[in-house]
Amino acid sequence: MVSVPSVSYSITVRLEVPSGGTSVGQLTAAVEKAGGLVTALDVTASGADRIQVDVTCAATSSAHAGELVMALRSVAGVVIGKVSDRTFLVHLGGKIEVVSKVPIRNRDDLSLIYTPGVARVSQALVDNPDDARRLTIKRNTVAVVTDGSAVLGLGNIGATAALPVMEGKAALFKRFGGIDAFPICLDTQDVDEIIRTVQHIAPVFAGINLEDISAPRCFEIEARLRELLDIPVFHDDQHGTAIVVLAALHNALKVVGKDIGSIRVAMSGAGAAGHAIAQLLVAAGVTDIVAADINGVIHPGRADLTGVPTWYLEHCNPRGVVGDLRDAVAGADVFVGVSAPNVLAAADVATMAPNAIVFALANPEPEIDPRAAGEYAAVVATGRSDYPNQINNVLAFPGVFRGLLDARSRSVTTEMMLAAAAALAATVKDDELNPSYIVPSVFHSGVADTVAAAVRGSVESIRRVAEETGEFPAIPV
Amino acid sequence: MVSVPSVSYSITVRLEVPSGGTSVGQLTAAVEKAGGLVTALDVTASGADRIQVDVTCAATSSAHAGELVMALRSVAGVVIGKVSDRTFLVHLGGKIEVVSKVPIRNRDDLSLIYTPGVARVSQALVDNPDDARRLTIKRNTVAVVTDGSAVLGLGNIGATAALPVMEGKAALFKRFGGIDAFPICLDTQDVDEIIRTVQHIAPVFAGINLEDISAPRCFEIEARLRELLDIPVFHDDQHGTAIVVLAALHNALKVVGKDIGSIRVAMSGAGAAGHAIAQLLVAAGVTDIVAADINGVIHPGRADLTGVPTWYLEHCNPRGVVGDLRDAVAGADVFVGVSAPNVLAAADVATMAPNAIVFALANPEPEIDPRAAGEYAAVVATGRSDYPNQINNVLAFPGVFRGLLDARSRSVTTEMMLAAAAALAATVKDDELNPSYIVPSVFHSGVADTVAAAVRGSVESIRRVAEETGEFPAIPV
Repeated sequence: MVSVPSVSYSITVRLEVPSGGTSVGQLTAAVEKAGGLVTALDVTASGADRIQVDVTCAATSSAHAGELVMALRSVAGVVIGKVSDRTFLVHLGGKIEVVSKVPIRNRDDLSLIYTPGVARVSQALVDNPDDARRLTIKRNTVAVVTDGSAVLGLGNIGATAALPVMEGKAALFKRFGGIDAFPICLDTQDVDEIIRTVQHIAPVFAGINLEDISAPRCFEIEARLRELLDIPVFHDDQHGTAIVVLAALHNALKVVGKDIGSIRVAMSGAGAAGHAIAQLLVAAGVTDIVAADINGVIHPGRADLTGVPTWYLEHCNPRGVVGDLRDAVAGADVFVGVSAPNVLAAADVATMAPNAIVFALANPEPEIDPRAAGEYAAVVATGRSDYPNQINNVLAFPGVFRGLLDARSRSVTTEMMLAAAAALAATVKDDELNPSYIVPSVFHSGVADTVAAAVRGSVESIRRVAEETGEFPAIPV
Repeated sequence: MVSVPSVSYSITVRLEVPSGGTSVGQLTAAVEKAGGLVTALDVTASGADRIQVDVTCAATSSAHAGELVMALRSVAGVVIGKVSDRTFLVHLGGKIEVVSKVPIRNRDDLSLIYTPGVARVSQALVDNPDDARRLTIKRNTVAVVTDGSAVLGLGNIGATAALPVMEGKAALFKRFGGIDAFPICLDTQDVDEIIRTVQHIAPVFAGINLEDISAPRCFEIEARLRELLDIPVFHDDQHGTAIVVLAALHNALKVVGKDIGSIRVAMSGAGAAGHAIAQLLVAAGVTDIVAADINGVIHPGRADLTGVPTWYLEHCNPRGVVGDLRDAVAGADVFVGVSAPNVLAAADVATMAPNAIVFALANPEPEIDPRAAGEYAAVVATGRSDYPNQINNVLAFPGVFRGLLDARSRSVTTEMMLAAAAALAATVKDDELNPSYIVPSVFHSGVADTVAAAVRGSVESIRRVAEETGEFPAIPV
């Protein structure tokens, strides 16, 4: 895949050039010649002989950013000053803060929000602990919990290095869901310790968003926390991805005119995301999933199934396919990749059923170049922001949690996720739907509200059933 | 002690009265006759015959607030509407929120603060973890940790009921110290579990403020966390109180013209606060402390010393006093009470040395009525806001943590606390100092900055010594 200059590798170079003449034009030319992109050019000071200019340009990598500075330096008469990295600038000092919602101007304010007034509120919670959802931040607060074991494409980088990601997640929670989220980065990767720690800190939170925890540990952590806690526990890498994939699949199937009950799905990757996607697709009615991991198609005859959830053996591969990913893909209507770069070739896509759908979600390098896939597939989606149909969790988690919090849900179930996926798919109107627009933009207004309403509705309907029958339905995931 | 109407028991009653005539005047009279205080009276709607009035009045208790409503109801022609409790109103939905410091307006913003840009920042932290204090919220973030075992005057109310207090504390951290504090209310009271949990969540924080943890468990929790963590751990109930007491004592001694090295101090209470106060007084040069708990003066001959820190036997009671609190108080220059209401009588204060100083800090009911103590003592201080000389932790903790964070301190030592106390005392200028003004108001501007500067100076001086000698001084507390 071709690298294009990205705002993630954007620098601002403060420099001086002789005023008048062609100096400024030469700056832009020099950056472009070196493969960069000038995105802003501000004259920040001007004198008789010289002017000070801030040149902001996008590069393709850190090394390339250095080359752009060299290119600017080579322009006649230029004196280079401070070089700032825009990405680091925006992260400086962290991306979230905790602020007071109440004024503290005088002694009366203090008496109300702290002693002695606060004692009355605490006493009310002793008498009725459920009022914590009314009288404290618990009403709107979610923990973003990670052990740093599987962060983005970086792998096991640990708690501290994961913090910038978790802060970003918290910022997204607020921006798209109006939710107060706080990062909990755990200095342990022991499953029992993680579970106990989350259990101990749970009273403040109305939901737990697990994040970037490696498989298969994430399965046990989530399952046991769901048993222990009376608030929803949701591993976003699994279920957030699964909801957006299912929503995208609903719309892609509409585009090609196929029915979810009769399609064949080939999957690459049986990790955290793959497992959750497969489970949600089955719950949505898919009857024929053939999954492959790095060692080939998952089937009961394989000797190396350690770490592969037994769920796969019970619910997938009904036709008993053996072999490698190619064998799974041949004749499939849908390919879903959550694995590794370039494991699929255009020739493989050519072996799929007519009007094939390809979701190549490995990030930043997909399982197949989306343009190559597009030669044979009718609909292509990736995890990248520079191609159509980006499968982005931001489409799901803010609305899902907004709905769970508003409904005061004590759990999150497959039913709620199916409702979320259907609502997300429906945000793309029939007259908007086409092969390049099967999911809305993350900035499409109303997405989170629509998903939230569906989740809230699902919680309330489950609650009604529970009240009528006296028991809550089992959680199938 | 006489109860006075307080804003903490303030209600707003919406009612209708006939317009014209003396109705409104009768409302105020009725509240005052019932012992309440009208603090606001707003006409919120007006018609030809009747007007709607919001009457806000302070009561002495919840029951008294109910009596005030009855009193209003008895006024001729009044129809009572909604009654709101101001304290509960201000706590509704919690008192803090988490907000994003960065704009998320478009895809470029997303790419900078989240994927793919954030991966570069995480990678930078893999390469240099110390940069977390530059590139993440760690720089300015403190955990307010409690197990809810000793909350205000309410006792062991647990994690959920403690949350309103911890939120209030977080709001105070921001208001007075500019610090982002987040409440961690632990659903366990097991010492080992608390320690492990705090250790696991520590990466996000640059300091741990322990809060409202009962003695003697708080001693072990703090001591072991200080060993385990590379960030300062500070139990505010202990050390925050101790710093403000020492600051107040410095100034009270100035008022009466006595020297800290030659005074006798009698203490009532050997719990969390008492222990820390006694330790800090000794570190500040006090040589003669006689402490009493509920079973009398602490001396080596007592059979019931379980739970009393052995520190007392090694550092206190040099004259071998035995007996009860009265025996400790006789001849003492200073009384410090952090125990229970009304354990001291005016007659006991009369037995103290001339120009006695009485700090009766039990809250809300002091060890002795401050007016009774004032008959014999030269300087009296309490923990209450309705008497002069309030010993309030808000005078210390925001500045102490501000200084620790600014200096990137990895610990908090007795030296730093002594520096904080001296700086706090010095915020009262010589021409302001008098028996009714030995500590500044919490709203006195510059208090936190002054304390912060002293703590930062202390950290930097310890660091210089460490760099010169190659070793950090032992932490004496």
